[in-house]
Amino acid sequence: MSGLTYKGSGVDITRAEDALSRIRERVARTKRPEVIGGIGAFGGLFKVAGTDTVLVATTDGVGTKLELARELDRHEVVGTDLVHHCVNDALAMGAEPLFFLDYFSCSKLDPEVFARVVGAMADACAAHGCALLGGETAEMPGMYREGAYDLAGFLVGSVARDQLLDPLQVGDGDALIGLPSSGLHTNGYTLARAVIDRAGLDLAAPLPELRGGTLGDALMRPHASYLGAVRTLRGVARVRSIAHLTGGGWEGNLPRALPPGLGARVHRDAWTVPPLFTLLGNAGAVPDAERWDTWNMGIGLVAVIAAEDARAALRALPDAIAIGHVETATGTTRVRFA
Amino acid sequence: MSGLTYKGSGVDITRAEDALSRIRERVARTKRPEVIGGIGAFGGLFKVAGTDTVLVATTDGVGTKLELARELDRHEVVGTDLVHHCVNDALAMGAEPLFFLDYFSCSKLDPEVFARVVGAMADACAAHGCALLGGETAEMPGMYREGAYDLAGFLVGSVARDQLLDPLQVGDGDALIGLPSSGLHTNGYTLARAVIDRAGLDLAAPLPELRGGTLGDALMRPHASYLGAVRTLRGVARVRSIAHLTGGGWEGNLPRALPPGLGARVHRDAWTVPPLFTLLGNAGAVPDAERWDTWNMGIGLVAVIAAEDARAALRALPDAIAIGHVETATGTTRVRFA
Repeated sequence: MSGLTYKGSGVDITRAEDALSRIRERVARTKRPEVIGGIGAFGGLFKVAGTDTVLVATTDGVGTKLELARELDRHEVVGTDLVHHCVNDALAMGAEPLFFLDYFSCSKLDPEVFARVVGAMADACAAHGCALLGGETAEMPGMYREGAYDLAGFLVGSVARDQLLDPLQVGDGDALIGLPSSGLHTNGYTLARAVIDRAGLDLAAPLPELRGGTLGDALMRPHASYLGAVRTLRGVARVRSIAHLTGGGWEGNLPRALPPGLGARVHRDAWTVPPLFTLLGNAGAVPDAERWDTWNMGIGLVAVIAAEDARAALRALPDAIAIGHVETATGTTRVRFA
Repeated sequence: MSGLTYKGSGVDITRAEDALSRIRERVARTKRPEVIGGIGAFGGLFKVAGTDTVLVATTDGVGTKLELARELDRHEVVGTDLVHHCVNDALAMGAEPLFFLDYFSCSKLDPEVFARVVGAMADACAAHGCALLGGETAEMPGMYREGAYDLAGFLVGSVARDQLLDPLQVGDGDALIGLPSSGLHTNGYTLARAVIDRAGLDLAAPLPELRGGTLGDALMRPHASYLGAVRTLRGVARVRSIAHLTGGGWEGNLPRALPPGLGARVHRDAWTVPPLFTLLGNAGAVPDAERWDTWNMGIGLVAVIAAEDARAALRALPDAIAIGHVETATGTTRVRFA
C-alpha cells in the first residue's frame, strides 16, 4: 500500500495554479491606482483616497472540514473557523478587522444548522471587534448532497500605510517566530479524511496518543486566531512580515512573506510536532515532505522579525517559539528544514 | 396538475427568514460605531474614519443559473452575472464599485471552466472600473456533483455620505422609474427549471414566442448592469432610493427602498412583460402572484425619484419606464398593482 498524498486524496494545487495563470492578464487589467501589490499576498490592498488608510480584503472557505463538522454535529466550529481564518489573513498584511460578510449555500436550508454556523460567526466577529455587515443565504436544490452546505467568508480590515507589512522589508538574518496552531486549522482535511477512511480510524475512540482525547475532537478544534498575539508582538518587536500557514503548508505559505532571493531556515527540533499530525501521517504513510507541504505541523503563523527583537518577542509571548531565521536562497525550494 | 410555485420547486424564503431571525441579536452585538443602518438593505454600510466616505459591502451568488450554465456550456455568463449583481446591489445604496473578490468552489477544479468563469468576472470588473482584488479557489472532493461548482462574489463600493440613498428620503407621491431587465437575471431559476422539467420544454428549440430565439439563450442572458443608467439618472433627477429586483421579486425587494408607512402603486400596463416570463409562467401554470413574487417580470431595477424630475429622467434614459408612484400603505402588502 503506497503512502497517501494530498494530490492522491483529490486535491491538486497545481491545477489551481494552472487555472489562475490563464486569467492573470485579464485580472491585471482590472487594477486601479488605489491597488497596492499584485496577486499572491494573503489579502488584497486598496488605498482609501485622501487618507493614509489601506483597506485589506480577504476571502476564504473552510474546505472539507465542513464534512467532518456535519458528521460530528459540530457546526459551530466551522463558523468560528471561517472568521478566524480571515482575521489571520488580514493580520498577515498588518491589518486589523473592520467588517465581515458571509455566504452560506446549501440545497435545503436547515434553520437550526444555519443559526449554529452563522451564530458562531457572529460571536467570533464580536470577539474580534469586527462588524458582521451582511451575508447571502443561497438555497440551491440538487446542488449539494443532502445536509451539505458550503461557506465563504469575506473580511475587510484596515491598516495605516506605514504599518503595512511587506515582505520587501525582510532581510537576511531576520528571526522567524512561530505561533502554535490548535490543530489542522482549516487545511489539509481532504488528506486527513482520506487517511481516516483508508486506515479505518475511529473518530470517537479515545486515543492514548491524544492523551485520551478522540480524533474527532482533535480534528474539530477551531482555527486559532492570532489577533491578540500579533498585537502583542507588534508592541515589542519590529515585525517585518507574517505568513499564515494555510493551504499549501510551509513551502506554500512561508515564501509569501519573503522577498525574492531570500528563504527560510527552519529548525524542526525547535518544537514538537503535535501528535495529531504524526498519528495521521503515520496511519496514512504520508511522506514526510507531503505532510509539511499540506499541514501546518503545529505552527499556525510565522512572524518575521528583527533578530535583535527575538528575545523580547519570546518574553512577551510565552507560547511563541524561535523556529529559525531568514537566509539567502537561490533554488525553487525556499523553506529548508534543519 | 396544480400550478408550480417557488416553494414547490424547493426554495422556501420563509425558511431563510426563520434562520436569520434566530441570530439577529447575536449579529446586532457585532455592530461598531462606523456601521450605519441594520440588516435588510441591499448592502452593508461602514463609515471610513476621518472622511465623509461610506463603504458599501455586498455579497451574492448566482443561484441555480449555475446548473443551466453547465448544461448549456455558457460558463462566462455566470461570471458576468455575479459582478453585475453585486454592482447593482451597491448602486441601490448609492455607491459605485471599488473592488471585488470571488469564491469559486468545486469538487475537482477544471482549469478551463475556471478560466472562463473567473476570466468573465475579470472582464466585467474591468468594464466597471472595479479592481478584482482577490479570490479563493476551493477544491472539495465529494462535496459537489461532478462538474458542478458554486460561486460567491463580494464587492465593496463607496459613496460620499451625503450621496447615500436612503428609503427615509422617500415621500408620498414620488415617482417610480423602472429599468428593463435582460431576462431572469439571477433569480427564480429553480422555479424556471422546475417548469422546464415538468413541461418538458426544449432549451435548444427556436420558439416563435421568443422571435425565433431559443429558451436556452433567453435564460442565459447576463444579468444587466445598471451602473451607466443610474449615473445618468442621478445627473438629471433627485434619486431618493433604489430597489434592485432580485430574489423575492417585487414584494420582496421594492419595500426595501421604501420607509415604513409607504408603499408602491405599480401600473402593470406601463410595460409588456417579456415573453420569457409569460412562456415559463404559462407552461408551469405558475399563479400570477407567484410570478411577481419570484421573478422581476421585465424590470430589473426601480428608482424612486422626485415626481417633478420624472420627465427629465425619461428623456435622459430612453429605455426607462414610468411604472407608478409611492403612496401610503398600511397592510402587509406594500406593492399594489393597478
